[in-house]
Amino acid sequence: MATAVINEYLDAHRQQHLDKLFELLRIPSIANNNDGACNTAANWLVQYMSDLGVKARVAPTPTQPVVMGHLHVSDAAPTVLVYGHYDVQPATPLELWNSPPFEPTIRDGNIYARGADDDKGQLFGYLMALEAYVRTDTPLPVNLKFLIEGEEEIGSPSLEGFLRENLTELACDAVLISDSAFFAEGLPSITYALRGVGNGEFFITEANSDSHSGIHGGTLRNPLHVVCEIVAAMRDADGRIMVPGFYDDVLTLTPAQRESWSKLPFDEGEYARSLGLDHLGGGERGYSVLERLWARPTLDINGIVGGYAGKGGKTVIPGQASAKFSFRSVPNQDPHKLMDAIEQFVAARVPMGMKFRFEVGSANPPVLLGQDTPAMQAAKEALQEVFGAQTAMICCGASVSVSEMFQRMLGVDAVMMGFGLPDDNLHAPNEKYALSQFYNAAKTIAATWAKMSR
Amino acid sequence: MATAVINEYLDAHRQQHLDKLFELLRIPSIANNNDGACNTAANWLVQYMSDLGVKARVAPTPTQPVVMGHLHVSDAAPTVLVYGHYDVQPATPLELWNSPPFEPTIRDGNIYARGADDDKGQLFGYLMALEAYVRTDTPLPVNLKFLIEGEEEIGSPSLEGFLRENLTELACDAVLISDSAFFAEGLPSITYALRGVGNGEFFITEANSDSHSGIHGGTLRNPLHVVCEIVAAMRDADGRIMVPGFYDDVLTLTPAQRESWSKLPFDEGEYARSLGLDHLGGGERGYSVLERLWARPTLDINGIVGGYAGKGGKTVIPGQASAKFSFRSVPNQDPHKLMDAIEQFVAARVPMGMKFRFEVGSANPPVLLGQDTPAMQAAKEALQEVFGAQTAMICCGASVSVSEMFQRMLGVDAVMMGFGLPDDNLHAPNEKYALSQFYNAAKTIAATWAKMSR
Repeated sequence: MATAVINEYLDAHRQQHLDKLFELLRIPSIANNNDGACNTAANWLVQYMSDLGVKARVAPTPTQPVVMGHLHVSDAAPTVLVYGHYDVQPATPLELWNSPPFEPTIRDGNIYARGADDDKGQLFGYLMALEAYVRTDTPLPVNLKFLIEGEEEIGSPSLEGFLRENLTELACDAVLISDSAFFAEGLPSITYALRGVGNGEFFITEANSDSHSGIHGGTLRNPLHVVCEIVAAMRDADGRIMVPGFYDDVLTLTPAQRESWSKLPFDEGEYARSLGLDHLGGGERGYSVLERLWARPTLDINGIVGGYAGKGGKTVIPGQASAKFSFRSVPNQDPHKLMDAIEQFVAARVPMGMKFRFEVGSANPPVLLGQDTPAMQAAKEALQEVFGAQTAMICCGASVSVSEMFQRMLGVDAVMMGFGLPDDNLHAPNEKYALSQFYNAAKTIAATWAKMSR
Repeated sequence: MATAVINEYLDAHRQQHLDKLFELLRIPSIANNNDGACNTAANWLVQYMSDLGVKARVAPTPTQPVVMGHLHVSDAAPTVLVYGHYDVQPATPLELWNSPPFEPTIRDGNIYARGADDDKGQLFGYLMALEAYVRTDTPLPVNLKFLIEGEEEIGSPSLEGFLRENLTELACDAVLISDSAFFAEGLPSITYALRGVGNGEFFITEANSDSHSGIHGGTLRNPLHVVCEIVAAMRDADGRIMVPGFYDDVLTLTPAQRESWSKLPFDEGEYARSLGLDHLGGGERGYSVLERLWARPTLDINGIVGGYAGKGGKTVIPGQASAKFSFRSVPNQDPHKLMDAIEQFVAARVPMGMKFRFEVGSANPPVLLGQDTPAMQAAKEALQEVFGAQTAMICCGASVSVSEMFQRMLGVDAVMMGFGLPDDNLHAPNEKYALSQFYNAAKTIAATWAKMSR
């Protein structure tokens, strides 16, 4: 059986794979740095992939390059596009790391380094799986394409344009992404829905400049007060958003969904304590924490501008004030419709004679991925085989626009099969990736490919 | 008659006085600059005063020095303390000046320079009046003391301590201050009441750090929303402050007061246009603009801190948010009582489980000055004689703490007899002082002294 050979190869080459991953982790490929590190990482990947027979190249973008690759084995086999990213978050504050972020270190069964999990460690699993097929002369069950970007941590500014220009080259039957995490240790998980994100700012103007609160206090309207009144009107005491139509297109949670989520190992008290709280006091009433995060839209004020926000005080009445807001939409909601509803809600509350301006920032849609695709089935089963537990189908409150782009532009629903663990310290000091996850990821990927070709 | 001699002297020495004032205006004595200019200005004043027989000295403070002087003529004569300040506002933005701020220029009957009005030009009137008495050998009708500070424009940080250390030396029967303005051109005015000012900041804390609005949006309470809810509750739709007790000690306006203020030449439309507004939409209902500014307390939010206030957006839920507030109190109100009332109002609205902190900045009391003192009577009459119009008794929405200090520490109600005009561009580019006001101020001061000795 092919799997046994593959797994034997992977078990026998653990140290070699760790050494190679360490090489990649030592490259400080931070997307915002123009120090050449991103090029180094891209070239390192092209070299590794070329050695395995992949036709790989570094493809330039206006900012950091994309690594593209393909390995065609058979017109009859399905074609899988592997997406990952070689860029990492900045490592600051350096003083909080127990070992240097770009000098990978093993402690207590974990690899500690910036990018160990996100995403170099997870991405490298695909190269290990491919290597196992190639070096054991096991026929590769799928055609492979690779798209490895270098700007994920800064919001993938070049990606949509790059996809548009390379649609034909990227055509595929399935997309595999490993850039997320197990819901809990021992609980393999696939993310099938993500919230969308929109943001903007509204401005309320009274006078043509800031005024002295003594000389004019009592005659002018204070735009900060008006902003506060509008924000206060946005929610009721039960945490519901009062913008008309805000929940119109939200899909009702099925009893089965609620039950399945309620069985996930989630401790609300522990979650609260992780945020420094004794207990959770906020949120929309009538929904569990996971339901609020995964299936309910939100509207948050992210900052308020106007007057004086420096040290101490200044007795000023601002001429203008603004509120920066963002919302998270859930599947079936149109973010542009929500944006319009918010604009109308604010506009209706601007007092007569005050000026009003509404600025749209972004309005990225939510994503709901097909749960019945052959690739999804294959991944579910492979995870279950390797980790010995049923795969949880989970959602994510945050937004990952790449899966939405693949759905919209390539017409393919990605399989978001993450191998991280919830405590991997992503974007924080002491990022880690468990060795057991690292080794088992490659086996899971290899098995997924095998199951896809049935 | 003494007055005729004095006035003749003043009329005959207009050019000399202008030349001397120009010397003083050329010194860029900005309190925050430690370039020696404040010392230069202080020494210049000491020299001028010494030449007139005043025992004058530069008295150091922790920051910029005070000029002290006294000229005793008779134990039977009343002692007048003259307060003024030699420091000026910064002159930036320089490009908006039509002539250099520290190169005084005459245009259209006005002196243009930083400090022309505020306060070098007004202060110099006292030296001109004194000079007229001395050089014409007219017996000075009052004993004179001078207290000329160099930090008024930065809030007089050293003044209270300086007063406390020099109480005996500063003992007097009356205080004259010329650092304000006519209500309108041709309408001599004395300011007899000023609002107090208090400020502080309240902080609302939920989580121990800012959170990702996707990963945690929907479960955490957003402190910015809570701040907005509290601020929104502070006023009703009629512009009344809803803090319990806020108006308790406010003196009711007498019909006579309302009538006298309603006769002042004040055009609400023009006032609105000066602020860039078509019309005034704000303010407490039921009171005229002057009543709101002079006789009603206010509570304003000056800034809101928390989350992200930079360019563009950031989808963050702040762990903490705060509001900076300031209030203006009117005579008979205790600012500490108001501060407590505000704290209780906010505290009562902090949701269960959220942390709350209240920081008091300042709480300076309002001032109501006696309108029947001999000095006040003398000044009123002198103004009327020189300017040929009845003196208006006016108030000020802003706060000038020095008159409150004199009342509290020296037990003397100052006479705030200002010679500026409302369009003198104080604290702004192209500050000016009308030549006619400059010349007449000295005559008025000389006449006030004469009338005080009756």
